[in-house]
Amino acid sequence: MLVSRRLTGARARAPLLASLLEAWCRQGRTTSSYSAFSEPSHVRALVYGNHGDPAKVIHSGVPGTGLYECCYMSAEDWKSGPCASQKTLIAARRDINLELTAVEGSDVHVKMLAAPINPSDINMIQGNYGLLPKLPAVGGNEGVGQVIAVGSSVSGLKPGDWVIPANAGLGTWRTEAVFSEEALIGVPKDIPLQSAATLGVNPCTAYRMLVDFEQLQPGDSVIQNASNSGVGQAVIQIASALGLKTINVIRDRPDIKKLTDRLKDLGADYVLTEEELRMPETKNIFKDLPLPRLALNCVGGKSSTELLRHLAPGGTMVTYGGMAKQPVTASVSMLIFKDLKLRGFWLSQWKKNHSPDEFKELILFLCNLIRQGQLTAPAWSGIPLQDYQQALEASMKPFVSSKQILTM
Amino acid sequence: MLVSRRLTGARARAPLLASLLEAWCRQGRTTSSYSAFSEPSHVRALVYGNHGDPAKVIHSGVPGTGLYECCYMSAEDWKSGPCASQKTLIAARRDINLELTAVEGSDVHVKMLAAPINPSDINMIQGNYGLLPKLPAVGGNEGVGQVIAVGSSVSGLKPGDWVIPANAGLGTWRTEAVFSEEALIGVPKDIPLQSAATLGVNPCTAYRMLVDFEQLQPGDSVIQNASNSGVGQAVIQIASALGLKTINVIRDRPDIKKLTDRLKDLGADYVLTEEELRMPETKNIFKDLPLPRLALNCVGGKSSTELLRHLAPGGTMVTYGGMAKQPVTASVSMLIFKDLKLRGFWLSQWKKNHSPDEFKELILFLCNLIRQGQLTAPAWSGIPLQDYQQALEASMKPFVSSKQILTM
Repeated sequence: MLVSRRLTGARARAPLLASLLEAWCRQGRTTSSYSAFSEPSHVRALVYGNHGDPAKVIHSGVPGTGLYECCYMSAEDWKSGPCASQKTLIAARRDINLELTAVEGSDVHVKMLAAPINPSDINMIQGNYGLLPKLPAVGGNEGVGQVIAVGSSVSGLKPGDWVIPANAGLGTWRTEAVFSEEALIGVPKDIPLQSAATLGVNPCTAYRMLVDFEQLQPGDSVIQNASNSGVGQAVIQIASALGLKTINVIRDRPDIKKLTDRLKDLGADYVLTEEELRMPETKNIFKDLPLPRLALNCVGGKSSTELLRHLAPGGTMVTYGGMAKQPVTASVSMLIFKDLKLRGFWLSQWKKNHSPDEFKELILFLCNLIRQGQLTAPAWSGIPLQDYQQALEASMKPFVSSKQILTM
Repeated sequence: MLVSRRLTGARARAPLLASLLEAWCRQGRTTSSYSAFSEPSHVRALVYGNHGDPAKVIHSGVPGTGLYECCYMSAEDWKSGPCASQKTLIAARRDINLELTAVEGSDVHVKMLAAPINPSDINMIQGNYGLLPKLPAVGGNEGVGQVIAVGSSVSGLKPGDWVIPANAGLGTWRTEAVFSEEALIGVPKDIPLQSAATLGVNPCTAYRMLVDFEQLQPGDSVIQNASNSGVGQAVIQIASALGLKTINVIRDRPDIKKLTDRLKDLGADYVLTEEELRMPETKNIFKDLPLPRLALNCVGGKSSTELLRHLAPGGTMVTYGGMAKQPVTASVSMLIFKDLKLRGFWLSQWKKNHSPDEFKELILFLCNLIRQGQLTAPAWSGIPLQDYQQALEASMKPFVSSKQILTM
């Protein structure tokens, strides 16, 4: 195991430090409940010092190139006996200040409760993302925490409140932290914890894509690929709540009926495999349904070309992911004669272009859907933070059917 | 020669008809001035009975698959002795009614003066166009004619007026015709004939693309490929009139300096080859110039990818042609993180979405630019209608530097 190997290296040069580190990590590994991490001195975080493939880094154990499980008490301890494999950890300690500071002014001390592993988190660690944090950094961009204490000038939050990150890059894969009030948004506590933990990215992305690009009316249809992704499941549910019909494309897989049934239970009107979408019979769907004016693409390559083929003239395809790692391709005639529009969506950019209040309004709208039973969290597996390796591996496997949520 | 071979076939079965036909064609071939075609009975038109490559069809002479030079007097003559190679002509005679009818009601008798060969005309003959006429059809979608006579209910046109087609598909490669008033738009006669003949498609396309997709201000920049095309030259001039800077990409070719100088004379700020655009030094241009928010793509493939690479974040690439016969490709990250927008433009669709008055307004705006010396016709070669083979071949050669305009 990576942590053990690192500790071996550390032990050779700094025996006291290594012993402490191992002891803390063991504590974390055997105790996954929230209360186990209630002492500020036991802050734990998943930190990466360089960009790379998270799975490879974890398995290869190459120092300084990937994720670390870190246990900190004080910076001085770390400085006492660095070895090569620890240099990044020390840098992390210095630069990202995992140590909790006194809670003053607009500070908010937050204990993280749960944080998902999203594809965009993985892309960020790999360095394939539009926003890359200064390294070393704490992983994770989404999650829900509970306020422990607030500084004197904090007016919008109080101890006990639930909060989610206002923006990407907060570093949610940690047990606790002191953040600035403006980095957080309060969410109601009468929604399920897993819904709150997965509220700030995927459902927001789904909603904005459904309403910002084409003015759809109840009865209109939307086509999407990667329909089983977190966004995909949110699209199905929010579209259904808005009276829109969804045509949902998924990759063929073992036990596909189970997935199809689950998506239909969420409100999917049609569920098709990529292969079925290419068949001439697919057009029969459009005897009962208007051609979609909106396509949502999280795949790219051939899959997105196929979405374009089924769009109504003048329709828009919005790309928000590229799981196939292939570009989006459109024939010239589709652009000119069919007037198809190719766009992209990135929630971080949307937030930059809109006020925090508009984001809060969106969050509250989605919370209402959750309360009304119209929006549930995606199928999920809760994994204790210290078992992050298992969670990361599961999140990157093909045909993942559940969102990995780290619990603290 | 195709016409001769056809006449040989015709002569074998209908000697009188063939002799007449040959005599008329000879008349056409030796007399290219307007007055030579002033008698309605001598209507001549370039007709195609099937879709195919115009150049190949003309050279192969396979009957019923391409362009014909037709001389008509009456339908009955044609019906008297059809041979296999004439069947399409007879069908053409019946269906497209080249024979001039009496001028009544909203009819307008027009003598065509000049009509260009545009890439879209070629695409239409090839069958690769968004709008395909019922076959057989007269070729040509653009041109200028003079009104000879008008029906009693025509109010907006009078004999002597110049007119251009209101929409694509009119069939302008002919000497004269009786059209409906609504199929025509009057243009002022104080602009050069070649400007009037090339006004209704390329400059309109250029102007709409410059103003309909991004709200550009004087000083902003636009990048385009195929900058020597009819649209490209119009873009350079209209952009210059609007205070916009243009970065103009062309294919490398013999004597490139001559072309570069000509485009700069038109108002081009920068002229680069495709290869130069890929060089790192190109970025130096943007020390003096804001990154373009608008790219105009008539090529597709790698050339359009390169345009995308130079667009400002949030910018739009408008595709209006596909000379490379390759699709437009955009990386997922360009769409998501750079928020690039991929659109298409087709003037025919714009006209469907806008009133005839809006089109007339556009035409008058462009005529003003012409009068002020800010918009000239593209470099052109006038070719008599009967030498259409030469004109078609020239229009399809690589590195064509002049627009072929058929004169009647």
